[in-house]
Amino acid sequence: MQSTDTPEAAHPGMDVITRPSELIQTYLETSIDWSLLPDNLAEAAKYGTLGSGKRLRPVLVILSCEAAGGRAEDALPAAAALELVHCFSLIHDDLPALDDDSLRRGRPTLHVHAGEPMAILAGDLLLAMAFGELTRMNMTPEQITSLVNELATGTRDMVVGQVYDTLGGLPEEQTPLEQLQLVHKNKTGALLRAACRMGAICASSDQSTLETLSRYGETVGLMFQVVDDLLDVTQSTEHVGKATGKDSALGKRTYPGLLGIEGSRQVVTDLMEQACNALETLGPSGKPLGDLCSFMAVRTR
Amino acid sequence: MQSTDTPEAAHPGMDVITRPSELIQTYLETSIDWSLLPDNLAEAAKYGTLGSGKRLRPVLVILSCEAAGGRAEDALPAAAALELVHCFSLIHDDLPALDDDSLRRGRPTLHVHAGEPMAILAGDLLLAMAFGELTRMNMTPEQITSLVNELATGTRDMVVGQVYDTLGGLPEEQTPLEQLQLVHKNKTGALLRAACRMGAICASSDQSTLETLSRYGETVGLMFQVVDDLLDVTQSTEHVGKATGKDSALGKRTYPGLLGIEGSRQVVTDLMEQACNALETLGPSGKPLGDLCSFMAVRTR
Repeated sequence: MQSTDTPEAAHPGMDVITRPSELIQTYLETSIDWSLLPDNLAEAAKYGTLGSGKRLRPVLVILSCEAAGGRAEDALPAAAALELVHCFSLIHDDLPALDDDSLRRGRPTLHVHAGEPMAILAGDLLLAMAFGELTRMNMTPEQITSLVNELATGTRDMVVGQVYDTLGGLPEEQTPLEQLQLVHKNKTGALLRAACRMGAICASSDQSTLETLSRYGETVGLMFQVVDDLLDVTQSTEHVGKATGKDSALGKRTYPGLLGIEGSRQVVTDLMEQACNALETLGPSGKPLGDLCSFMAVRTR
Repeated sequence: MQSTDTPEAAHPGMDVITRPSELIQTYLETSIDWSLLPDNLAEAAKYGTLGSGKRLRPVLVILSCEAAGGRAEDALPAAAALELVHCFSLIHDDLPALDDDSLRRGRPTLHVHAGEPMAILAGDLLLAMAFGELTRMNMTPEQITSLVNELATGTRDMVVGQVYDTLGGLPEEQTPLEQLQLVHKNKTGALLRAACRMGAICASSDQSTLETLSRYGETVGLMFQVVDDLLDVTQSTEHVGKATGKDSALGKRTYPGLLGIEGSRQVVTDLMEQACNALETLGPSGKPLGDLCSFMAVRTR
């Protein structure tokens, strides 16, 4: 998934990612019935879903399920649902009317590849399919209802974050840093938090474990976005596989813009420690999530 | 809801629509927590949801629930969820990249009113909120799971229908009429069928009643679209409240185009009879749905 010339290639977090990431890739390719769709729509939906990608959200679902004592297989449909929502959001965010990006995961974005009408509709489709996927789970109806609730709330908050980020509407009484945190908490954090909570629900976890994983997800979500802000100023487009340098070009508020590069790196370190501390009550079963977190802190793409 | 100068104003079907339509309007205004959203997004989402409109889909949910022995109150969240999906689909279908419509329900479409980025995001939001609404229901988790499944399937098929209609992908071995039926079955029929099924599920109906209402919904869905095709050639934009004459201008395949106006009117009559016959096993409790169907056959907007 990563070339060997990056610092993350040798990181223990890579081992932690590889197995669940392959599980989810196989599930997306073989367990979702793309053949129910017209060929043109199926092609677009698969283009937007099956390419490479970190698969961070489904990996979090699976590792959280395992940390709470469950099995990876039980979490796969929920993990796939979350990845479908993530892919839908990338497709729509890349549209000309929004971020107007032409490159994603190292290849043309869907609207460049298949046209804007198809990109809008394929995104809509993936969001609907995500919820359908949850009803196919081998879970109790109580669990499915909780999973639907988490996914709906996470998606709603993600859209709220995108509105804050691109169209404004932030509370004016807040400081610039508070506003930035509110953007990130919604835009990225909501779905990472949902990932961890959904994993816990798949494992029928107790309330205390659910809350632990929820806190971990929130912290990792914020950390992820600070790292993203840093990559936007420190890495090339070619390396990251999507446009970089856009934040400052657009005059967007970012962590490096508010706290500087070193200040932002310190925030990453602090958040990484917070996330790992949150896992302590889980004992050894939380270790993979700890490795994943420290990997995400040093990722370069 | 209708001015008095149209033939439908005095139709008994209007009485059948008015009560559930007012129930759903009140529910959308007061029971959905729009205040959780940033002001700009809440304004856009409400603009796309709370305007006038026939509310046909939620009315079908409520009347189907009652026909199956349930209470309107029990069906309201499901009815609202279906209307949110319908409103999301109108917002996205109206976008410049898709149907490029500037008028809807007699006023500017959302992207004209609030800009294209907001229209895309508000549509996404409404779809996510629809599924969230289902988890707030006072139903068993089994019922909620079934409702989520119906809504996800109906939404998926609706998107498939929109792809067929605007981007192609129809099976080439089919006749033009079969292709047109396939478009309509998905684009309009899927959500009307889902409406009737969701109503039945809210009433904890038996399998036979569910199937009866399902057949009714499918038939009414097709009839609805034939009437829509007819209105596009026989009514003014001013009367209908959205652009008319677009189908022939775009060279779209339509019922009047394939069967002529009189031939299409005969299809409407036949489908209306089929739908009413499907209701017979329900006895008197199916009468409001019969009135609704005959009303929809004579509607002029």
